[in-house]
Formats: sequence, structure tokens, C-alpha cells
Amino acid sequence: MEKILASIITIGDELLIGQVIDTNSAWMAQELNKAGIWVNHRVAIGDVRDDIWNALDEESKRAHIILITGGLGPTADDITKPLLCEYFGCKMVVDEQALENVTNIFQRILKRKMIERDIKQAEVPDGCIVIQNKRGTAPGMWFERDGKIFVSMPGVPNEMKGMMTDEVIPSLQKKFTLPFIVHKTLLVAGIGESSVAEHIKDFESTLPSHIKLAYLPNYGMVRLRLTASGDNKKELEDELQNKFETLKQLVSEWLAIDDDKTMQEALGKLLKEKNKTIGTAESCTGGYIAHLITSIAGSSSYFKGSVVSYAYETKEDVLHVSKETLETLGAVSQETVLQMAKGALELLNTDYIIVTSGIMGPDGGTPEKPVGTVWIAVGSKEKIIAQKFKFRFDRMRNIELTANNAMNMARKFIVEN
Amino acid sequence: MEKILASIITIGDELLIGQVIDTNSAWMAQELNKAGIWVNHRVAIGDVRDDIWNALDEESKRAHIILITGGLGPTADDITKPLLCEYFGCKMVVDEQALENVTNIFQRILKRKMIERDIKQAEVPDGCIVIQNKRGTAPGMWFERDGKIFVSMPGVPNEMKGMMTDEVIPSLQKKFTLPFIVHKTLLVAGIGESSVAEHIKDFESTLPSHIKLAYLPNYGMVRLRLTASGDNKKELEDELQNKFETLKQLVSEWLAIDDDKTMQEALGKLLKEKNKTIGTAESCTGGYIAHLITSIAGSSSYFKGSVVSYAYETKEDVLHVSKETLETLGAVSQETVLQMAKGALELLNTDYIIVTSGIMGPDGGTPEKPVGTVWIAVGSKEKIIAQKFKFRFDRMRNIELTANNAMNMARKFIVEN
Repeated sequence: MEKILASIITIGDELLIGQVIDTNSAWMAQELNKAGIWVNHRVAIGDVRDDIWNALDEESKRAHIILITGGLGPTADDITKPLLCEYFGCKMVVDEQALENVTNIFQRILKRKMIERDIKQAEVPDGCIVIQNKRGTAPGMWFERDGKIFVSMPGVPNEMKGMMTDEVIPSLQKKFTLPFIVHKTLLVAGIGESSVAEHIKDFESTLPSHIKLAYLPNYGMVRLRLTASGDNKKELEDELQNKFETLKQLVSEWLAIDDDKTMQEALGKLLKEKNKTIGTAESCTGGYIAHLITSIAGSSSYFKGSVVSYAYETKEDVLHVSKETLETLGAVSQETVLQMAKGALELLNTDYIIVTSGIMGPDGGTPEKPVGTVWIAVGSKEKIIAQKFKFRFDRMRNIELTANNAMNMARKFIVEN
Repeated sequence: MEKILASIITIGDELLIGQVIDTNSAWMAQELNKAGIWVNHRVAIGDVRDDIWNALDEESKRAHIILITGGLGPTADDITKPLLCEYFGCKMVVDEQALENVTNIFQRILKRKMIERDIKQAEVPDGCIVIQNKRGTAPGMWFERDGKIFVSMPGVPNEMKGMMTDEVIPSLQKKFTLPFIVHKTLLVAGIGESSVAEHIKDFESTLPSHIKLAYLPNYGMVRLRLTASGDNKKELEDELQNKFETLKQLVSEWLAIDDDKTMQEALGKLLKEKNKTIGTAESCTGGYIAHLITSIAGSSSYFKGSVVSYAYETKEDVLHVSKETLETLGAVSQETVLQMAKGALELLNTDYIIVTSGIMGPDGGTPEKPVGTVWIAVGSKEKIIAQKFKFRFDRMRNIELTANNAMNMARKFIVEN
């Protein structure tokens, strides 16, 4: 079976100047992969005629499928659509269905008059199959030439995602005979990348060539992903499951979840299973843990709420941390996080609580408590434990590390208590 | 003056399979740009020998500077270093300073025995200039061939950033004669991309060719960026400042901040100027607004804290929303956000408050209150205003939109009251 390859071209000066982070490519790669299509090349170029033209030429030599995002907006810096029209020797025509969509969006949803550049959004090259945009104004375009597929989509993430899911992936699956690709991923926490690699090196060296192991470290956690490819779905799944079970055994001490999930999903799953609730009392993480937990749909069944006690006053008035403790030991101390935990468990009336207090930087450090010093407490009405951590990074990284370590501490506490 | 071009190559199967979002490239592009170096191409490839080799060949034809990140970790899927050694015809040697660094990290910081694959981190090709890694174990490598510069750095963001700032950018500035590039950016909110484009089309059409205007839309906000390039720094800055003032006037109605800042930075700046404090009472945003505000260093001078009242019970017990209101009008109602605002202003004792309650999806919608229905309130002890919004996207996007609109409402309220 021929390996079907895809290239992703992202277009936009904003990508090359670095004012926008490209999240589209990762999502597209994931979806293509699930369908058995390998992305072997990704390229980002500016809104520059020659660069776009060359990228179309070059990527079509590398891959069967060329997916293009960006450069379709209504403003003057977007040149992709007329260029595609010329590249494929077409002429521009108004697509009636696209026009209806644009009109609908302006008249019914945005409730404002359409201007000429809005109407231009409904124009497409006459040689393409139009992919209607159910979430925005710019239509997608599907071209075929010399057996290669070119698909141009808007750069707005949810518009692109809608087109990929509804139209592009299903059409590609019809067009090509695709192999089966199976992934199994688990999450470990509290162990570094090279230590886990050392721990499982014998396992790794005995993997057959069609099964690959990847290490994906991320803020105090490492995801381990096994990927198998082949023609027989059942055999492949059985073989991978077998290897995955072995891997799980090997890393059981640090295993947070045996699935491609985040720490907040692992924690949520556990709480749901136990039918228990949780809340947070956050100082240095400033609501970030609550945000991570509530970013999961359905979290309202186990998450009750939080107190973000950023100021001393809020710690005292809302969580009843004693003034004396704050004055003598400081906000970043074991005693403070224990009192915050007690206060929050009572106020929020939850089964479990997560508490953080630390110095995230870049300012606020002292010789005794340098930037990166964090106290985390987790517990229940019966028992509260606290642990000191020392991170040594920038503000955002310290916040991420504190959040992940705090959620992992809570997860372990819930399993053990 | 010759335009100095850079290409960025990011290496790693995890990028092509989409399990990691590439944030490095955007940051690198920003830093290069500030130094007067244009990134004209970015490419992502897997841990595949031929692809890396070809990328080195191809990108060196396109650019003067080829920056490579990733593929330097200690685990078996990282093949970049030996390949670079071969590509530049070198042999591997242990770098004493890198070894000292690795040893220090393992013995003093991680406090564990070094294993062979850790020591390998200190090996480098003998033909490169070693860039020491002050934040991790893998050293960077600087190669020169035929007037082209190749720099290989680890993929771990803070390690790469440290090397770029401390070594790579200063060395490139010494190596090349670079033009001046000046950016001026402002943030507008409450107006869409095409409306703002229509509003300033005359301004845009009169810009000289060395000044470019870009639209960067992002969750209910649009950043407008003017970029000028030239040889005379003073003239360029004056000319750009002049255009920027005109642009500011044109968009004054929607202007959140006349700088390349986020909405939370705009809000923070305003509160600092007025010497006032703020807090949040969040239901549907689940602490995300508090997180955005506290992600800014120094926010403790104006941010006191939050109550994330996710459960009905928390709204009643902590914020004193009446049971009757919740039972008759529901949590997503004008009356509820007004009561949340009053309760939180009192509890947190702040000058201003931001309140959210809505249905973020994918579940929980009803015919009267579909997914995306949000009530936002902002106010002070003297006056509270509330507004209903209707978003229509996925959970994360609805949370982002709610947060930005809520902060913008608060910003406007503070300016006007």
C-alpha cells in the first residue's frame, strides 16, 4: 500500500513576524494522522506572491495532498485566492451558495450592511470544488491536478476545523486507500524525560520497526506515545494493546492516566468515578487551576468553585488565614497553605481542595524565598498535606508547573485517601 | 543594503503528528524581526534523516541564516546532532564546559546519578562554535559554511530563548549589516476585521510602500500593526509615529490600547494609573479572567482576588445570590450577575468587579438560552451595568470571547466612571 503523504502550507505575514502562533497545523496533523495520512512537511510563508507560488510547486512534488490555510480574509493583505485562481488557470466567479452564506451572516447575524469586500468573499475560481463555510464568510476551495489534491481553507481555526471535519477528511478517505494508524498514549508525572527513557530502554529496544515510541515532555509531565501502522486493523490494535500494557506496568509508579488526556482530565475522571467534588484556593496560580479544570466540558459535576486569594487581605477576609501567620511566616509558607485549605474546604463545601501559594517572578523573590518557591497543599476535611516546590523558570512556566504538580498531588491524594 | 533573510527549521515527529504546538517559531520570528532580520520561510519536519538533510540544503539556498530547533534531546528519537556532525564533516568530541554544565545539573539540581545518555548531551561536532545552555543540558551549535550561518538549538522553549537572547541575536548583529525595522501596534475591540478595514481603507491606500499595515484578529479583538523598514532610524521612527497617530485617531472609538499589548495589559495599565483595584466573580469563565489578569507581572498591585462560583451553591453561599433568583431566573440571567457583582464587591472589597455567567457548551443549552448565551456585569459600589452576549462557537472560544469582552467592558466602564 502506498503511503499517502500530506504537506501543510500556512500563509500569512503574521506567522513570519511571529505575532500569531500557528495552532492550526498541529490540529490538522492530528486529524490527518487519525485518517492514516502522514504529514511529512509543514511550511509557513508570508503573503508574498512568489513564495506562495513556489510553495505550491515544491510541496506538490513532496506530497499527494497539499493543505493550505490562511490568506483568505477580506483585507488587502490577503492575496491567496486570486493567486490560486491564476495557478490553476481559472477565472473568478461568484458562488451562489457562498453568497447566500455571506449575505446570511451579515444580515441576520452581524446585522449590518454588506460592503463590496464582503461580497468578494463569495467569489471563487471556476475550476475548484467549493467547500462551504458554515462558520464564517470565506469559502474553502478543492483543486485537483496531476493526481494531486490541493485544498485551500481560511486561517480562522474554527472555520478550518469545520471544513476539515465535515468535508476534507471524508473526501480524502474516499479518494485514497489508506493504512491503519493506531496511537496509544499515556501520561506520567513526577519523573523526567531521560529518567523515564532509561527506565524503559529495554522495552524500547525490543519494539518492532512498525511501532514507534515518542517522548513528549510538557511542564513536569511526559506523555509516552506508541504509534503502530499496518494493513490489518485488528492485528495491529491487538499488538499495540499488548505493548501498551507492558509499558503501563513499567511506568505504573508515575502513571497519571493511561490515555491521551491532560492532567485536568485525569483528575476529573477520578472525581467522577468517586462521585466527589473539588475546589481550589489559589494565590500564585491566580485562577489558572480552576480554568484548567473548568476547560473540560462536564466539569460542573465535580467542580464547585474557587477562591483566588491574590491579596493578603483576601486570604484573611475570605479564607480566614490568621493575620499573625501572614505577618510572621508570610503568604508563601506551609502554615498559610494549610490554613487556606481549611478555610476553602469550609467555604466551598467540597470533598477535596487544591491550594497554591508561591512566588512566580520575575519580581518578589527574596534570598530565603527565591522566585520559583511554591507551597502546594491538597486535602480533605479529614487530612491535609503540604509540599514545598522549587521551580526556576519564567512566570508562565512557573504557573504551568505549579498547576500540573498541584493537580497531580491532588490526584495521588484522592487515589490514596 | 542587502536584506538579511532567515529560515527556521523545526525538527520533531511530535510536530508532524500534531501533539505539540510550535510556539518557538513565533517567538524566534519576533526576536529576529526586532533585530532587522526577515524570516521568509519556516518549515517543520520529522525526525527523519533525509528530510533533515534536504531541509538544510534547501533552506540554505533561501536564506543567510538557518535556525534549527529540536531534535537534541537525550532520547532515542533524536537524531539531529549526529546528522549535523556528518553534514558539516565533523567528528564528535566532548565539550568540557558543556560536560561541566550537565554534571552540575544532575548532581546539584536534580541530585541524581548521571547515566550514559546524559553524558552524551555534552558531545558536540568539533567544527562548531558551542553555545552553552544555561537552562538545560543540550548545548547549542553554531556552524558556518559558504557564508551561511546554521544554528542548532534545543526545542525546549526557555532553553532556546535563553540561547537566542544571550548569544545568537548578538552574534548575528555583529555578523551582518542590518536595516532598521520598526513596528507600531494598537488593539481595537468591539469591531470586526472587515469593518475596521472598511473604516480605514483610505488611510491604508495612501501608505508608502515601505510601510505595511496588517490586521491580526483574535477573539473579538483586532490588532492593527504598522511595520516600516529603512536605513535611517530617526526618519523612519518619525514617519511611522506620524502614520500611527493618524491611525489612532481613525479608530479611537474602539481603541483599547495604543501599544502591542493584550486586553489584560490594557486593563492593568488603566488600573495602575488610577490607583484602583479589581476583582472577578466568574461562573462560566471558571477563573480564566483571573488567570489572564494575574499572568501579568505586577498585577498584585491592582488585583485582589476572585470567586469562581461554578456551582449554584457557591453562588448562594459565597456571593449571596438569592436562591429565589437562581430558581426562577437561572444562573445565566441579568439579575444573577448583578447580585454576583454586589456580593463580590463586598467580599473582595475592590473598587471594580468583573462578573460572568453563561453557557459555554457543548452541553447545557436550552431553546431560550442556547450555548453561547452569556451575561457579563461590570461595576463599582456606585454603579453596576450588565450586558447580554451571544457567542456561537466551541467551549474554549466562547470562554476566550467572554473573557475579552468582559475585560473590555470593564476597561470602558473605568474610563467612563
